[in-house]
Amino acid sequence: MAKPNSFLYISLCLVVLFNGCLAKRWQQQQQFNQCQLDRLDALEPNNRIEAEAGVIESWDPNNQQFQCAGVAVVRHTLECNGLLLPQYSPTHQLIYIVQGRGYLGTVLPGCPETYQDSQQQQQHQQEQEQEQGQSRRFRGDRHQKIQHFRQGDIIAIPAGVAHWLYNNGDSEVVAVSLLDLNNQANQLDENPRYFYLAGNPEDEFQQQGQGRRQQQQHQQHEQQNNNNNVLSGFSSELLADVFNMDVQTIRKLQGSEEERRPRKNIVKVDGELQVIRPPRSRQEQEREEEREHRQSGRGRDVDNGLEETLCTLRLRENIGDASRADIYNPEAGRISTLNSNKLRLLNWLQLSAERGKLNRNAIHVAHWTQNAHTVIYGVRGTARVQVVDDSGRSVFDDELQQGQVLIVPQNFAVVKRASSEGFEWVAFKTNDNAQITPLAGQNSVIRAIPADVLANAYQISREDAQELKENSQDIALIRPSRTSSERRVM
Amino acid sequence: MAKPNSFLYISLCLVVLFNGCLAKRWQQQQQFNQCQLDRLDALEPNNRIEAEAGVIESWDPNNQQFQCAGVAVVRHTLECNGLLLPQYSPTHQLIYIVQGRGYLGTVLPGCPETYQDSQQQQQHQQEQEQEQGQSRRFRGDRHQKIQHFRQGDIIAIPAGVAHWLYNNGDSEVVAVSLLDLNNQANQLDENPRYFYLAGNPEDEFQQQGQGRRQQQQHQQHEQQNNNNNVLSGFSSELLADVFNMDVQTIRKLQGSEEERRPRKNIVKVDGELQVIRPPRSRQEQEREEEREHRQSGRGRDVDNGLEETLCTLRLRENIGDASRADIYNPEAGRISTLNSNKLRLLNWLQLSAERGKLNRNAIHVAHWTQNAHTVIYGVRGTARVQVVDDSGRSVFDDELQQGQVLIVPQNFAVVKRASSEGFEWVAFKTNDNAQITPLAGQNSVIRAIPADVLANAYQISREDAQELKENSQDIALIRPSRTSSERRVM
Amino acid sequence: MAKPNSFLYISLCLVVLFNGCLAKRWQQQQQFNQCQLDRLDALEPNNRIEAEAGVIESWDPNNQQFQCAGVAVVRHTLECNGLLLPQYSPTHQLIYIVQGRGYLGTVLPGCPETYQDSQQQQQHQQEQEQEQGQSRRFRGDRHQKIQHFRQGDIIAIPAGVAHWLYNNGDSEVVAVSLLDLNNQANQLDENPRYFYLAGNPEDEFQQQGQGRRQQQQHQQHEQQNNNNNVLSGFSSELLADVFNMDVQTIRKLQGSEEERRPRKNIVKVDGELQVIRPPRSRQEQEREEEREHRQSGRGRDVDNGLEETLCTLRLRENIGDASRADIYNPEAGRISTLNSNKLRLLNWLQLSAERGKLNRNAIHVAHWTQNAHTVIYGVRGTARVQVVDDSGRSVFDDELQQGQVLIVPQNFAVVKRASSEGFEWVAFKTNDNAQITPLAGQNSVIRAIPADVLANAYQISREDAQELKENSQDIALIRPSRTSSERRVM
Repeated sequence: MAKPNSFLYISLCLVVLFNGCLAKRWQQQQQFNQCQLDRLDALEPNNRIEAEAGVIESWDPNNQQFQCAGVAVVRHTLECNGLLLPQYSPTHQLIYIVQGRGYLGTVLPGCPETYQDSQQQQQHQQEQEQEQGQSRRFRGDRHQKIQHFRQGDIIAIPAGVAHWLYNNGDSEVVAVSLLDLNNQANQLDENPRYFYLAGNPEDEFQQQGQGRRQQQQHQQHEQQNNNNNVLSGFSSELLADVFNMDVQTIRKLQGSEEERRPRKNIVKVDGELQVIRPPRSRQEQEREEEREHRQSGRGRDVDNGLEETLCTLRLRENIGDASRADIYNPEAGRISTLNSNKLRLLNWLQLSAERGKLNRNAIHVAHWTQNAHTVIYGVRGTARVQVVDDSGRSVFDDELQQGQVLIVPQNFAVVKRASSEGFEWVAFKTNDNAQITPLAGQNSVIRAIPADVLANAYQISREDAQELKENSQDIALIRPSRTSSERRVM
Repeated sequence: MAKPNSFLYISLCLVVLFNGCLAKRWQQQQQFNQCQLDRLDALEPNNRIEAEAGVIESWDPNNQQFQCAGVAVVRHTLECNGLLLPQYSPTHQLIYIVQGRGYLGTVLPGCPETYQDSQQQQQHQQEQEQEQGQSRRFRGDRHQKIQHFRQGDIIAIPAGVAHWLYNNGDSEVVAVSLLDLNNQANQLDENPRYFYLAGNPEDEFQQQGQGRRQQQQHQQHEQQNNNNNVLSGFSSELLADVFNMDVQTIRKLQGSEEERRPRKNIVKVDGELQVIRPPRSRQEQEREEEREHRQSGRGRDVDNGLEETLCTLRLRENIGDASRADIYNPEAGRISTLNSNKLRLLNWLQLSAERGKLNRNAIHVAHWTQNAHTVIYGVRGTARVQVVDDSGRSVFDDELQQGQVLIVPQNFAVVKRASSEGFEWVAFKTNDNAQITPLAGQNSVIRAIPADVLANAYQISREDAQELKENSQDIALIRPSRTSSERRVM
Repeated sequence: MAKPNSFLYISLCLVVLFNGCLAKRWQQQQQFNQCQLDRLDALEPNNRIEAEAGVIESWDPNNQQFQCAGVAVVRHTLECNGLLLPQYSPTHQLIYIVQGRGYLGTVLPGCPETYQDSQQQQQHQQEQEQEQGQSRRFRGDRHQKIQHFRQGDIIAIPAGVAHWLYNNGDSEVVAVSLLDLNNQANQLDENPRYFYLAGNPEDEFQQQGQGRRQQQQHQQHEQQNNNNNVLSGFSSELLADVFNMDVQTIRKLQGSEEERRPRKNIVKVDGELQVIRPPRSRQEQEREEEREHRQSGRGRDVDNGLEETLCTLRLRENIGDASRADIYNPEAGRISTLNSNKLRLLNWLQLSAERGKLNRNAIHVAHWTQNAHTVIYGVRGTARVQVVDDSGRSVFDDELQQGQVLIVPQNFAVVKRASSEGFEWVAFKTNDNAQITPLAGQNSVIRAIPADVLANAYQISREDAQELKENSQDIALIRPSRTSSERRVM
């Protein structure tokens, strides 16, 4: 038994263990024929929350495409110094950072608070505060690990894990989140939900819900002074005992003070957010990421107990850089994939992601995903996309533009051709190791099948079948040398 | 590769294997918005079967709370010498022994009959029989392993495994069972079902079902002579061939003889039940349990084949004793949890349990369960419980009393304060490793989040944020030193 | 750590990995009380497609029995030289070869094309072609591995994997396929679907669908020139670029040429299909199978990388031969089971199969399956079958004949008695390791339970209980020595 092998298998076992940590069950509403889709649409968000320091836009989860895939999509825009209030959801989430940079904080109960102020730092911060005219006496803080994120990152958040985002850059942060409602981790119903731990947040999916939620919304309009972070539902006296604080402060935690001027889900931080973090330059950051990445690949957690393993688990991986490309054709473009082999946590979440870039007029060849739905978000430019269902009908033949979402259901065949401005996208997949079968090119159906089967299946000559196979030497991204119109004349 | 590590991982793999043994699929009815609960209720059973030697009470599985959690709950009360007839269910089950002691027999097909009468024992038993005036000639018996159970035990029964319970103590046995309908092991629909192998049992969920069941019940009233153990549905002649017995005896197995005087689901054993069991005192029993427990922790099954592993799998663990507490505060109370790390079978069942005890006026701090529903059963005393949903609304703010069930859906926040008589509960969780995030105290959100995030999120001063964190030093169980009324004045 | 052990566990881990490769989620329509079945029926197919070189028959997936089990069943009959066009499905499939022999080709993307023409073979084939009057110049081919199949084989096809079947024998090939719609691998809705890569196939489940499909069918009748392989839904110009071929050929791939004379799903190959395959005699074939089988048992894939492991994964296993029997009674018959311990891929698919043969008047003793539905297909002869539900009602008491399907839901008890002509069947089970509990015989409930429990449960004497146990020495297949009528007189 060679060491590298035994090592690998042990890692797999660990992954399996984590997998077992969250639920293997779920309870979604299932509609009759929900994937009998006559037509797909490239969709824009249709709900918008204007918060103090940013905007939250969401796609209608009751749309049939979303119902078929069992997912919800939300886009957060954080202004500079904007703080997305601590929240959690019963679903696993993948977040793609479309632009900007900032901090991510997660709450992993049972994990230690490993970031602690040194005396020196405290003094430095106190001086800063004094410069900013704040003269409060300040005691040292201690909290759980904080992660930096930047454009091109995929962040994975397990169900029920509280987290917050903060924009510490000098431009807006734009983040697109996928909530996987049909995953067994979500034991509630098919409605997407966020539980907030602070503030007076609005419901991201409020205008789109049915039944109770509409009613509730109606009540809100009547009652006016609705506030709905989780703490607000408890009695102040009981919380005062729980937190060992006076009722006055508890009322602030419950958001009761904010009633007249709600800051909503994203609030503005006065000055800069003061958190403890290792000092570092951009190069240092990248070097550190590289190191973390190598370690994670080498299975750093083997020597540790399980708890520490969970606590040091990598939640984030960059797939925006060209250097991370898995498929690369300098003329046509590139694709980077992030699956559970690269980011172990995805095995637990049963999700993966793909980041693609097509140069002008280049084509991502026709293919289907064997074992997952694909949720495509247009990051830049436009493409003509065609999608075909099981009965050979074209259910989508249109442009997909920046900022739009298109859902390609499992096994539906899809082809993309970039416009003259090129096209970039991120795709979330509802499987941690999505398997793609291309119709043409390397690794394609055409090359795997014997020429005589092709000849008989398509009623073409054996020479044509052979030529079909030989012409399929390209990788999944191609830049046609001849235009379609030229070809038509041939 | 250090030995202890390799050992651990191998054990995990084994667990995974067992996990694979039962189905990864299910088919539950899913209702629209089934977890859009306006209000939760502390529920009492609303169906009751009075059997010959005990009572079966069940909670309405069509109640919206139960539908949201996808579970059913039943309470069995066995009189002394009461025998719950052999039965099985398509769902996994957890049983908590509220009081009493007795035997549990399970049928694991393919496992050997390892309990056998010695000649001596037979003679002894024959003598006993003769003393009791029974003069029948008696041949030696042999059967599968039998387990003792006692107050505070959790018993895990996999889907489809036939089992029986017998009260061999001198007081009633009270057992509360959770049936996990939404687990993939249950491939039938959302209706809870028990299949009986003997007797003329009544349907535990009869009065609550819809459609077919009501109709069927109606037919029963007309036909009167309904009998419904599984054998009764086969033709007597075919069974006579199968069992190689005369039709007369077969008719008895089918329960046809009992029509006029049905003993129903729990029958009285004449004298004491004569089963083979190792002789032992109470101390011996506890010592043996301790030994079994140690062995199971050390992975005794590594050297054995798979079948033997399944056959010697531990089905039972005591969480009632104070010595098993995982969280302990002599002033406030204690909590013992039973997850798949302690009882391996739970990994397969995807269920876990918690046994809690709050002293008078003590508080179990506000928290949410990340990855599971929580089904709380009041064992003793009363508590005031508050539950909050995702929109910050209080969906429960009431007393939870002994004998009542309250379901806290995944991610809903909950706090409990014991009354002046204290409160004890058992909670079933729909995940084998339920993760809890406390809002306050050690390991809480408040302590994991940087003080400046708290200050900005709650619009409190940084000093207050720091105090909030520093005051949260307690464990999850607290006994407030000051009363709420005192605090309110502050 | 002993070598054999470490070996076993590593294999398990690998299996777990594959398991993770396909989705852990699904989205089936769930009806209220869908398993509240008043009556089961032995069903024949009710949809039929007459193709150029064969017939496809399917069972109505909307039938309540099929809805309860969440499966669909299709029977393919391929004439000599018939080719089932390349297709794939979002569900896992098990195929049983009822009769005949042929080739199976699968497309595993990322796996190499390992079958290549040698120069010699090419010449030989060219000569053959010339003899057949074909004078085309022929270039060497290369394609993925092809497998032989023969009567008694179970073939496992994962979701989304394209495959084709060809009859190279001298009699019809008859194949029965199970599509597991409720498995999490299927992320689409409850409707069974095949995606075809060539030809003008008809929808196998067309006449049975509802809503959209009926409408669509209606449109077809009006439009007449419907063609529906997946390629037909893309624009010809885009495909011309993708395949780097002229539009004329692309139109052929799309099936547009075939409009007037559709060959449908199964087409006739002119002459014999020319694929590359190792030359071998029947004995060689069997010897090779034996070798493959041994290797797979010994875990040949441990030394290879993961991709190669997937690429050399065994998809096929014969359970038709008497030599593979797991339960054997020369007087009564035999049963062979194929579970994930024998064919590793089944762990991923969560399916297993059973092949049974009862001699005239022999009985397969009453039993229930703990963790799976059972889909029985009658292969030869007839049997009287009785099925009993949870309330002890007989829901089936009738003949099951060759060519019929009967579904026995999870935990329902079933007994079979062959007619005077005997009975053979294949059963698909919706669990990779279906656990059966017999009511009588070895390993049965009766033998596992203490005699005194039986005596008290059934109100029979302890002697009768003991006799009941002692008479249950037989294995699951019995040939009653006395007839039922004789017994009745006793």
